[in-house]
Amino acid sequence: MKRLNLLFIGFGIVGRGLAELLLEKEGMLKSRFDLEVKTVGICDLRWGTIVNDDGINLSKALKLVNSGKALTNYDSPAKRDLTSLEAIRETTSNVVVEATWTNIETGEPGLTHIREALKLGKHVATTNKGPIALAYKELISLAKVKGAQLRFEGTVMSGTPTFNLKWSCLAAAEVRRIVGILNGTTNFILTEMEKGLSYEEALHNAQELGYAEADPTLDVDGWDAAIKAVILANVLMDGNLSLKDVKRRGIRGISLEEVLSPIKQGCRLKLLVEVRRERSDIVAKVDLTPVPTTSILAGVSGPLNAMVMETDVLGDVTIIGPGAGRRPTGYALLNDILEISKHL
Amino acid sequence: MKRLNLLFIGFGIVGRGLAELLLEKEGMLKSRFDLEVKTVGICDLRWGTIVNDDGINLSKALKLVNSGKALTNYDSPAKRDLTSLEAIRETTSNVVVEATWTNIETGEPGLTHIREALKLGKHVATTNKGPIALAYKELISLAKVKGAQLRFEGTVMSGTPTFNLKWSCLAAAEVRRIVGILNGTTNFILTEMEKGLSYEEALHNAQELGYAEADPTLDVDGWDAAIKAVILANVLMDGNLSLKDVKRRGIRGISLEEVLSPIKQGCRLKLLVEVRRERSDIVAKVDLTPVPTTSILAGVSGPLNAMVMETDVLGDVTIIGPGAGRRPTGYALLNDILEISKHL
Repeated sequence: MKRLNLLFIGFGIVGRGLAELLLEKEGMLKSRFDLEVKTVGICDLRWGTIVNDDGINLSKALKLVNSGKALTNYDSPAKRDLTSLEAIRETTSNVVVEATWTNIETGEPGLTHIREALKLGKHVATTNKGPIALAYKELISLAKVKGAQLRFEGTVMSGTPTFNLKWSCLAAAEVRRIVGILNGTTNFILTEMEKGLSYEEALHNAQELGYAEADPTLDVDGWDAAIKAVILANVLMDGNLSLKDVKRRGIRGISLEEVLSPIKQGCRLKLLVEVRRERSDIVAKVDLTPVPTTSILAGVSGPLNAMVMETDVLGDVTIIGPGAGRRPTGYALLNDILEISKHL
Repeated sequence: MKRLNLLFIGFGIVGRGLAELLLEKEGMLKSRFDLEVKTVGICDLRWGTIVNDDGINLSKALKLVNSGKALTNYDSPAKRDLTSLEAIRETTSNVVVEATWTNIETGEPGLTHIREALKLGKHVATTNKGPIALAYKELISLAKVKGAQLRFEGTVMSGTPTFNLKWSCLAAAEVRRIVGILNGTTNFILTEMEKGLSYEEALHNAQELGYAEADPTLDVDGWDAAIKAVILANVLMDGNLSLKDVKRRGIRGISLEEVLSPIKQGCRLKLLVEVRRERSDIVAKVDLTPVPTTSILAGVSGPLNAMVMETDVLGDVTIIGPGAGRRPTGYALLNDILEISKHL
C-alpha cells in the first residue's frame, strides 16, 4: 500500500471539493490503486488551522466548515496555533495541496507556500493559477532539484484533462498551436446574449448561478483567459511569457448587436485564447473571434471549456469539458495526487 | 537508456506509419524518454519476412516496400524464411506490434499472433480491432499472468486519445455512458450528403479519398462502429458483450431526404455509438440519430471522430480528433510503445 500524507493549504470550495472526493473514493483508491491518503493538516485563513500527524478526520472537518464553524472547534487532538508555513514545515505531510486564491500580480500567498513545500522536497498539487503563471520555470526547476513533483492540472480547465492529456496521451507529439475557450464565465455570458439578453442581464444571470464573482473584472476583462494563455504557452510550448506579453481583449459592456451580427454571417462570437509559434517566438492572445457555426468550437456553449491542440502527428485534437466547479476542480487535485503516487 | 526490441507483424499502411514515426522521432525518443527502439523483424504476408536480432534498418525496409519491392530484397544480413509465429518465437523481440487486417468473425490471424506473443511474456501493441473485440478478457488475463502488457490505443479512434485518456487522465472517474461518432467513413458520407450529394456520389468521393474501401460493407452497414462499441463496453465499462449484442443500423442506401429533413428541424443526422449501463447490464447500439445543430457532436464533420464520456466527477468530457490514417494510427502504436516502456 502506498501512503500519502496530505496537507491542505486553503479549504474553500476547491479544497473541500477534493476532501469530499477523497471520502467518496477512499475504498476505490485502496482497491484499484493500492493508495491510502491520510490528511495530516488543514490550514485556511478563514476557517483556521488544525494539524495532527496521526491523521485528521476529514469528514468531521468538512462538517464543521460546511456548517459555518471554524476548524478550531474540531473535537479531536490537533495542534491549532500554526501558520500555513509552519504547517508545511512541521507536519509529516509529503504532499501539499495548495488551493488558496489566485493573485495574478504577486502569486501570493500561494507562491511562497509552493516554494517552501518544494524546498523541503514535498510534492505539490495546486489549482492556483498565480504561481504557475508567474513562476513556472523557477518552480519546476526547484522541484527537479529537490526530487519533488509539481502538479497543476486544475489551473486551466479544472478537471478536464489538459496537461495530463499532453503528457500522458500525446507525449511523443509536438504541439504547434493551441486555441481554446478557456473562460466559462464569458462563454456563458455570450451564450446568454445570443438568446437576446443584454450584457448586464447576462452578467447578472452568471452571478446568480455562481459563474461570475461580484467583481467580474478577472473574467470579463479577459485576465483569467490571459493567465491561462501564459500557463499553456510556458508549460506546453516551452514559452517564456508574462501576462503583459498577452494581447488581451475582454467582453465588458459588449453590445447585443456585436453578439448577434456574426450569427447572420453563419458564425458565433467566442472569446478565444490562441497560443502559437511565430518564427522562434511563442505569441499569445485573447480575442473576440467569430467562429463558423459548423465548427466544433461553435458548439461549446454556456460555461463549458474547450481546448484544441494542433499537433504534428494527429492534426487537431480537441478536448471539451467543465472549466470550473467544486467537483471538477476537486477532481483535478485528486488526479494530481494519483499521478504523484504513481511516480513515487 | 531503456531498450525495446520490436517485431512488426503486418507492414501495411499502419505498420509503415509507425515505422516512419520511429525514424522521424528517434532522436526525441532518446533525449526526452531515454528510449531506444530497435527493430528486430518485419513479417508481412505480402512483402515477406526479414528478421535479425542485431537490428533491421527500418529506413531501408521502408524504401523497399514503398517502391513496391518485397522485403526479401533487403540487402543486409537477415533471415527470410520464417512464418510470423516463428518470428514471434525466435526473435529477441520484447514488443510485438500486431498490425494485420481486422477479421471481425475470427479475429485471425491477429488473435493467434497476440496470444503467442503474450504466452511468451512479450508485450503487445496492436491496432487490430478483431482480437480486442472478440477476446479482450481472455487476452488481458493472459497478459497479467505472463507479466506482459497489452496495449491497443489505436483500435477505436486511431491516435486520438481513448483508452489512455481514461486510464491516465480520468483514472479515478467512473464512466457511466459513452456516446460517439466512431466511424469516419460514414460521418464523411453524411457530411457530403448534407451538401446535396446522393449516397452513391458521397460513397464514391469517400472511396476516391481513401476513406472507404472498394467493398464498404464494414463501414456503411455499421459493423466497424459496432465493433468499437463492443471494445469500449468491455474495456472501459467492464461489459461482456459480443458483436451480436449490439443493436446495429448502418447508412447504406440512405436517401437525401432522410439526411436533409433533420436540418429543417435544427438537427444533423449522425451515426452514433452509444454504450450505457441499464440496471446491472451494459447495453450498446449503433444508430442514426438527429443531434441538435447547436450541440458539440453536430460540429464533428467529415472523417473526424468524437467520443463523449459521461463521468461521475466531470459530467461529459468530449474528445475529438482523427479516427483513421497512416500517421494518426501509426502514432497510436508509438504511444502504446511509450506506455509499455514506462511500465518496464
